[in-house]
Amino acid sequence: MAVGWFYLSVLALCSLGSICILSTIYWMRYWHGGFAWDGSILMFNWHPVLMVTSMVVLYSAASLVYRLPQSWVGPRLPWKSGHAAMHLLAFLLTVLGLHAVFEFHNHAKIPHLYSLHSWLGITTVFLFACQWFLGFSVFLLPWASMWLRSLLKPIHVFFGASILSLAIASVVSGINEKLFFSLKNGTKSYSNLPSEAVFANCAGMLVVVFGLLVLYILLASSWKRPEPGMQAERELLLRLGPGSWLFPVTDMPVTAAQPCVTCSSEKSLSSCPSE
Amino acid sequence: MAVGWFYLSVLALCSLGSICILSTIYWMRYWHGGFAWDGSILMFNWHPVLMVTSMVVLYSAASLVYRLPQSWVGPRLPWKSGHAAMHLLAFLLTVLGLHAVFEFHNHAKIPHLYSLHSWLGITTVFLFACQWFLGFSVFLLPWASMWLRSLLKPIHVFFGASILSLAIASVVSGINEKLFFSLKNGTKSYSNLPSEAVFANCAGMLVVVFGLLVLYILLASSWKRPEPGMQAERELLLRLGPGSWLFPVTDMPVTAAQPCVTCSSEKSLSSCPSE
Repeated sequence: MAVGWFYLSVLALCSLGSICILSTIYWMRYWHGGFAWDGSILMFNWHPVLMVTSMVVLYSAASLVYRLPQSWVGPRLPWKSGHAAMHLLAFLLTVLGLHAVFEFHNHAKIPHLYSLHSWLGITTVFLFACQWFLGFSVFLLPWASMWLRSLLKPIHVFFGASILSLAIASVVSGINEKLFFSLKNGTKSYSNLPSEAVFANCAGMLVVVFGLLVLYILLASSWKRPEPGMQAERELLLRLGPGSWLFPVTDMPVTAAQPCVTCSSEKSLSSCPSE
Repeated sequence: MAVGWFYLSVLALCSLGSICILSTIYWMRYWHGGFAWDGSILMFNWHPVLMVTSMVVLYSAASLVYRLPQSWVGPRLPWKSGHAAMHLLAFLLTVLGLHAVFEFHNHAKIPHLYSLHSWLGITTVFLFACQWFLGFSVFLLPWASMWLRSLLKPIHVFFGASILSLAIASVVSGINEKLFFSLKNGTKSYSNLPSEAVFANCAGMLVVVFGLLVLYILLASSWKRPEPGMQAERELLLRLGPGSWLFPVTDMPVTAAQPCVTCSSEKSLSSCPSE
């Protein structure tokens, strides 16, 4: 992949993620009175903002850490720790987002967890918690064998992408539900598409586009860490620029046949990506 | 992968897909009066049934055609044609499902395409149409060069999985929306979780589980067609059983290093999976 295209994509993704968060904040401030932390409907307004910020944008940023070419060279521990720490921050914000809606329900005497949106959302958060503990125990702590890591890595990667997909489905159903709650009457009914409906629908579609872009980068081979056999070659392609900033050159042609090393022995696994 | 495990997974997936369709039919028959094709609310009832059947279950079955070991040997054209024909059938049922809701809206004078569910749903169907025409033109018709096929194949595969993910998000938001419409009053309100709400929520979660299983099989390397270098070896592992039914043996150990052939020349591409 060309360097210019790589950094343009990262910039576009950061901008799109920021727009998703800002448009959710704007929706809640402009049409729903802003924010508070007192059990009122203003406390509920934190729920969509915190869930989009944590489960979509921050979760995506944490997942994409290994797609930065800088993470492909040198010691892995700092990148692993960063990956785990960003996911932990995302999880803590998710818990705050859940607390906001539970506290509002308690004050307004609304039952918890009845809609399909809430069932899917709480399942997604539960899977996220399991995923984080599995990742921390197996890939960050030193006790797990290389055999166990190579066994669990594809599952960890698959659930990483799945949890993001489920989070997006939860956000879409949540925005849809909120609009049916708040736009009920006359010219302000949802079916008449008042300005709030158009704005929030667009915000929801932006979240979907952002999620698809992240999933593409996560799954496309051209964005992945090169195979161990290509590692030394790639290291040569990484030149130190001004301020020791790593400057990836990844648009080199590859030969028609290249060696693949499967991680089937302890020796070969030591050079395999363990996370 | 062991043969027993493979066929058990296929059986589980078929059963789960059937349960998804049957539970949607039961929901519409038992709680919403069944079906008609007359513009009434009974015509709307076809919408969830046809969308789950076409965009989730039939679409998944069509996508998984290349995961059957029988498709890895012999001529590819019958499998390609089957893949395209099943997707075409899924698309036609999708159009019928859309017609059911548009016709109901026309009769009840309800505006079309206002909710986020409908925006996401119609975008998904549009992407499905583009994907089918791209697949048909590039991978089934003989005019496209191998270079173009190898360029577009990862995009075709990524959008294949993405469209299924978007379809599942649309189904979840659609079930949620329908339950807020139909369960409004007193003890029958959605928040009191009457039997219909529990049943439809469970049906929605089953669709999600089905979708995740299909995405796992689509993306996991152990379910994929072997690399061209392994093709001859795999053909030896496919033994003809009674009635010429192909019997895959795919649990053989592999060596620590195996050759990879990238599709960079016209000659090597002729033995690469073109779709």
